[in-house]
Amino acid sequence: MKIARYSYQGAIAFGIVDEHELVVLTSDPMFAGFDTTGDRVALADVKLLAPVIPRSKVVAMVSAEAFVLRPNTAVVGPGDAIVLPAASEQIEVDGQLAIIIGKIAKNVSPADALSRVFGYTVATVVTAANLASGVAGAFDTFLPLGPVIETEFDEASSALRGLINDEEFQAVALDDDDRMTEDTVSALVAFASSVFTLLPGDVILPGRLDTPTAVVDGDTITMAIAGIGSLVNPVVRPA
Amino acid sequence: MKIARYSYQGAIAFGIVDEHELVVLTSDPMFAGFDTTGDRVALADVKLLAPVIPRSKVVAMVSAEAFVLRPNTAVVGPGDAIVLPAASEQIEVDGQLAIIIGKIAKNVSPADALSRVFGYTVATVVTAANLASGVAGAFDTFLPLGPVIETEFDEASSALRGLINDEEFQAVALDDDDRMTEDTVSALVAFASSVFTLLPGDVILPGRLDTPTAVVDGDTITMAIAGIGSLVNPVVRPA
Repeated sequence: MKIARYSYQGAIAFGIVDEHELVVLTSDPMFAGFDTTGDRVALADVKLLAPVIPRSKVVAMVSAEAFVLRPNTAVVGPGDAIVLPAASEQIEVDGQLAIIIGKIAKNVSPADALSRVFGYTVATVVTAANLASGVAGAFDTFLPLGPVIETEFDEASSALRGLINDEEFQAVALDDDDRMTEDTVSALVAFASSVFTLLPGDVILPGRLDTPTAVVDGDTITMAIAGIGSLVNPVVRPA
Repeated sequence: MKIARYSYQGAIAFGIVDEHELVVLTSDPMFAGFDTTGDRVALADVKLLAPVIPRSKVVAMVSAEAFVLRPNTAVVGPGDAIVLPAASEQIEVDGQLAIIIGKIAKNVSPADALSRVFGYTVATVVTAANLASGVAGAFDTFLPLGPVIETEFDEASSALRGLINDEEFQAVALDDDDRMTEDTVSALVAFASSVFTLLPGDVILPGRLDTPTAVVDGDTITMAIAGIGSLVNPVVRPA
């Protein structure tokens, strides 16, 4: 099931994707379940937003047991601009499968971990490569997420593809070298929950699947994961 | 003015400290201003809570232009236990003056920065010294804050004092070597706002004022800043 967060006629709402329409939900399904209002709205008529705004943590893994936290102010949605900061000329991007936590988790075992996952979305992870690690990924707009959350996702049958403008720079099966399997997800959620309490809406970025690439003003990044969708964001440097 | 967040008869509320009483506020003054309900409650009858739960960021400075983010799940209040994690035997603490943001701030100048500060509280900053920087400060309970927020605070006339049990391990005038002056606060807020949008409730930890010390199960940490108050937390290791 694909869940969209969107704005329509000035209000923010959630819906289940049904081909070219959204089945409108009464509230955020992560907290309120999947009750529908009875309304439908055409996908073409809405603006898709980042499908989740983390209220507590974005955990960006850098190795099996090390991470940096990214701020929720870095999150933007489909179509939103990635704004290059004045502080860096060396901006690079990579694509990751973002894990979205749906239930509180503290010291969960790998066997229980998947029960705490709400779903998965595409992350375009932007980094100022010349800055210290805590700062490098913290800038506003440095974490596009979207276009939707897939609640039933099979890592083993999926692949990630990244394009700058029309040129492919990342193409990887998620389970190549066991990079991103159900076991990877379970281990990450279990590890993170051994450090802190994971809350609904927390996001785990599992780490790089493939080599990042540099981006400049005017580029358009497309990050696609088969079974979830394509996340497209322009890159701009303010005048 | 000293602002407390507290629980009383099962509800969480905010109040202005008036000697041994709290003047009850209608809501969180950071968002709703200082309207009072007309009620008063004795300080002795309430449980003080962490005076702020950050909704976006805790920015822990490690040098002038480098920081790590700490999660809001690390925040606890006065009297709450600091729980030692199984992952580390090397836990150290230091005291800091926590800056609490009250108004949205993006690319503010140092001259404008203080207008975005809501107030100040005491932070007991706990770190697992043997772990990677992003993980080291991320554990649940590793950021006691309190006992109250002082909205009118004069760094230059204040001092921090840290005790383990009854033994002093930190004692420093805040403006020694210009460590923590109004200019320090302005520069930190301006720098942080050059990286990301600061939101009301965000906390900036300015960095170490003095040498940290190791703590073990059974210790009691008292961190006091003159003009704000004393933050007391026991240290426990779960059986």
